[in-house]
Amino acid sequence: MLPKAFAFDVFGTVVDWRGGIARESAPFLAAIGRAEIDGHAFADAWRARYQPAMAAVREGRRDWVILDLLHREMLEETLRRSGIDPARLGETALAEWTRAWHRLAPWPDAVAGLARLRARFPVVTLSNGNVALQVNLARHAGLTWDAICGAELARAYKPDPQAYLATAAALGLAPGQLCLVAAHHSDLAAARACGLLTAYVDRPQEYGGRPAPDAHLAQDWDWRADDFTGLADRLGCRADL
Amino acid sequence: MLPKAFAFDVFGTVVDWRGGIARESAPFLAAIGRAEIDGHAFADAWRARYQPAMAAVREGRRDWVILDLLHREMLEETLRRSGIDPARLGETALAEWTRAWHRLAPWPDAVAGLARLRARFPVVTLSNGNVALQVNLARHAGLTWDAICGAELARAYKPDPQAYLATAAALGLAPGQLCLVAAHHSDLAAARACGLLTAYVDRPQEYGGRPAPDAHLAQDWDWRADDFTGLADRLGCRADL
Repeated sequence: MLPKAFAFDVFGTVVDWRGGIARESAPFLAAIGRAEIDGHAFADAWRARYQPAMAAVREGRRDWVILDLLHREMLEETLRRSGIDPARLGETALAEWTRAWHRLAPWPDAVAGLARLRARFPVVTLSNGNVALQVNLARHAGLTWDAICGAELARAYKPDPQAYLATAAALGLAPGQLCLVAAHHSDLAAARACGLLTAYVDRPQEYGGRPAPDAHLAQDWDWRADDFTGLADRLGCRADL
Repeated sequence: MLPKAFAFDVFGTVVDWRGGIARESAPFLAAIGRAEIDGHAFADAWRARYQPAMAAVREGRRDWVILDLLHREMLEETLRRSGIDPARLGETALAEWTRAWHRLAPWPDAVAGLARLRARFPVVTLSNGNVALQVNLARHAGLTWDAICGAELARAYKPDPQAYLATAAALGLAPGQLCLVAAHHSDLAAARACGLLTAYVDRPQEYGGRPAPDAHLAQDWDWRADDFTGLADRLGCRADL
């Protein structure tokens, strides 16, 4: 059965966070005399703090805070671990560097494929990114969403079931009427456990060609495509848009 | 100073609720043998229950519920007051009639004017309508928003300050960086009291040409225009889009 709407993971599925953070971080690293740090390695180190940062909220050890704030704290910790005192950079530079997450580029097929899907189905974000981050990112990347749903609406970080269930509820849908689109088996597995439909899109360059950390969680998802254009084809969305 | 983003009231400001509810209600009234009830009078009677229904939530006499549910209850009460037992209609008809609020038409300038504004500024809803209602309405009317904010995000109905403040916060903005666009002086007055900028757009046909109930609250707003095209002109948004 076709879903009534599609909800998209964003980081890694729609936009290339690793390439974008590497590119955006290079001038900041150069400005503090640390140009020898590889941008991609810095992006990996920054992102490595993502799950632990959210775990504190998911496990109730910390009240709800938005991802922009976690990204800032994760940046400061990443700098410290590289022997850089964040205070050296000043508030403006730290805030601007954190906003690198608002300026990521979409995968080459994302804008056109999403437009084809949106012509037939409502499309929303189901990301851990907060509303301001998703609004800025979408405008930067040229993406159009029908709504920003996910973590901030739910006040819960994926894979907390509440993130998926609150998104379906906000759209007035039963979980089985909503399909998550993601490049991550772990995300899709959590969505399926909540009753959502699932569509896997392969993003082999998310980790620069290295295997994804959740490759062992691969399952037979409801749909599978190499990119958004392929997903639009499989769902019968017109190509002449 | 120009705002960083615009937030729009929707019912009456972007879409013609009265004309739409009159048009959508006519076949339902005919189907129950009450074709003699005027569609516009029925729309007015349905909408007359709007403020009392939200007041119960605003005043804490009732837990948060979405506007779709209030619209349904308001419909049933409006039918009862017309001597019609809602149970006669059955669940499917009542649900479908309630969804008339998802199928309203935009004012003639709304789609083009909003597109011009959106080319330069983020544009979001700041309506009492819930997410599903706004998503369906936008897709029906051909409107594009950067995010659905307002009551459901805030879990508070305008003019509760929380509805305005939570929308600014979700966008990462101070209240003075966000501008409410509305055809209602009462809404703009509440937004101004929260520190938002204000833009009034005249919608003389909202009540079929009769004076608006809040005409006495008129003030010197930050911007004023006859329609969205005029607002886009005043804000220097390009016309060749």
